[in-house]
Amino acid sequence: MIQKLMDEIRRKNAPVVVGLDPNLSFVPQHLQAQARDKVMSCAAYKGEDEDTLALRAAAEAVWEFNRAIVDAVYDLVPAVKPQIAMYEQFGLPGLEAYDRTVRYCREKGLIIIGDVKRGDIGSTSASYAKAHIGRIGIEGREIPVFDVDFATVNPYLGSDGIQPFVDVCNECDKGIFVLVKTSNPSSGEFQDILTQDGTPMYELVGRKVREWGEASMDGRYSNVGAVVGATWPEQGERLRKLMPNTFILAPGYGAQGASARDLSMFFDEAGEGAIVNSSRGIIAAWTKDAYSEYGAEGFAQAARAAAIDMIEDLRQAIADR
Amino acid sequence: MIQKLMDEIRRKNAPVVVGLDPNLSFVPQHLQAQARDKVMSCAAYKGEDEDTLALRAAAEAVWEFNRAIVDAVYDLVPAVKPQIAMYEQFGLPGLEAYDRTVRYCREKGLIIIGDVKRGDIGSTSASYAKAHIGRIGIEGREIPVFDVDFATVNPYLGSDGIQPFVDVCNECDKGIFVLVKTSNPSSGEFQDILTQDGTPMYELVGRKVREWGEASMDGRYSNVGAVVGATWPEQGERLRKLMPNTFILAPGYGAQGASARDLSMFFDEAGEGAIVNSSRGIIAAWTKDAYSEYGAEGFAQAARAAAIDMIEDLRQAIADR
Repeated sequence: MIQKLMDEIRRKNAPVVVGLDPNLSFVPQHLQAQARDKVMSCAAYKGEDEDTLALRAAAEAVWEFNRAIVDAVYDLVPAVKPQIAMYEQFGLPGLEAYDRTVRYCREKGLIIIGDVKRGDIGSTSASYAKAHIGRIGIEGREIPVFDVDFATVNPYLGSDGIQPFVDVCNECDKGIFVLVKTSNPSSGEFQDILTQDGTPMYELVGRKVREWGEASMDGRYSNVGAVVGATWPEQGERLRKLMPNTFILAPGYGAQGASARDLSMFFDEAGEGAIVNSSRGIIAAWTKDAYSEYGAEGFAQAARAAAIDMIEDLRQAIADR
Repeated sequence: MIQKLMDEIRRKNAPVVVGLDPNLSFVPQHLQAQARDKVMSCAAYKGEDEDTLALRAAAEAVWEFNRAIVDAVYDLVPAVKPQIAMYEQFGLPGLEAYDRTVRYCREKGLIIIGDVKRGDIGSTSASYAKAHIGRIGIEGREIPVFDVDFATVNPYLGSDGIQPFVDVCNECDKGIFVLVKTSNPSSGEFQDILTQDGTPMYELVGRKVREWGEASMDGRYSNVGAVVGATWPEQGERLRKLMPNTFILAPGYGAQGASARDLSMFFDEAGEGAIVNSSRGIIAAWTKDAYSEYGAEGFAQAARAAAIDMIEDLRQAIADR
């Protein structure tokens, strides 16, 4: 699957993934109102309590928002990364919106990175792996469930929590990105702790990711990738060298403060081997001064403009190295 | 919320939580067949594809299984711990079964520990916290979503991934259990790594859990608890001392190999401060030699017998210290 992602990045000349993290505050009021009207007039929901209807309306607004964003960017970028927490917060209707979003992105030919950050003991990780990137066996049928192309995975439980995901990568030609050095301000609290020989914890995790990845190579890179925050350029450069066959998913560009220059060292000598995520910077562009000309009605076109600017910014930074 | 859990443990004299992790292989064939018939004859599902119907049937079987188990044990134990992965693997119908299970357990007066192991960067953790233990704000309404009493949380991202959960604990009188030392065989890979001053990583996490917990005290213990695998008695004893106000959720009894004796040091001098989980050991008791007399039809009574045995075993081990 990593080869497919690389092919799509090359084809679109855009190492960019659009994070579909639709906080309600990014969804224009007119979309929310339309969604509410639609839900309220839906015969199937008649008699449901107010709370359930409000969750349904929020989820419907999120879905319509996503659809418009996807329509506006699918020809520009190879991949999207829905953050499942933003859907889970609206309960079952929210997860239905997640599922619809995934299906729609697939129809549009996009590669889908489910940002689920799952991870548990072995047998439980196996269930998560089946749920998100694999198939669940029921009475001889093998059924795809949420069926995204990549899932993000938390390494805190060690190899037996990761192995079931690697197995599913191989069985179903899918991929994972293991959290190595996350983009958030306090990521260093545990990840940067120096171990007895002076190696920081994130490097130990990086070494394991490289090792796990050897069991699922797909061309030059492995289906077992790593999440390395764009906000940590120095660590990114070290990890790039430490994990030469590990594809990097780098969140943190834009809203979290990282620049394209910070990111240029995440790529290999061919300018490949990494993909950079932006969520708010693209999907909420209409709320930013730089794209305010588009207004709330033009939110999707603002996202398109922001995606074009980000792609150009990254191309330039890679070329300028 | 931790006070409420302690009160219920005291009232039932049972520091035991039943893990509702209904792998389909634990669900007797007759229940699966009934569920399939029910789904197939349901007018609302007419015209749905085979895969969706199979997921619905599996989810329905899981729900009926849980209901019978809960009916058989709710008077014995203070709490249940549904493992969300086991529901997520059946997609949206599975998560509906999770939701139904949670509601039913609440009706029965049980405290519910959602074993979700979520954790992300700050703003995303806030969404997870709202989804699982808090409320989501939509147009001035504050709506409970999955609404369990405790959630398990992964600490790998550090304080800013945990703080939103602690805030919700305080706002909604709920609790969390942070993964400190997990029960699985490879948990030591990162958790036992010695840092420069010789402290293992899990102890650093334990210290942080203690610190985070100070902001949410509820009687002697904090609403911010810790997961410490029963399979690691030595580490459990150290952590008990290191985190004197941290309530411990201990998985690993029974199926994963830990004995009540291994666990006795997880409790404080009053025999409190910890709760022990068993999942397969109780809910799949009917498949074990020791309870085979109950047969598949008696799966719920087998679970009851196994719960009684486990409670007695732990009471004895605590008394014998």
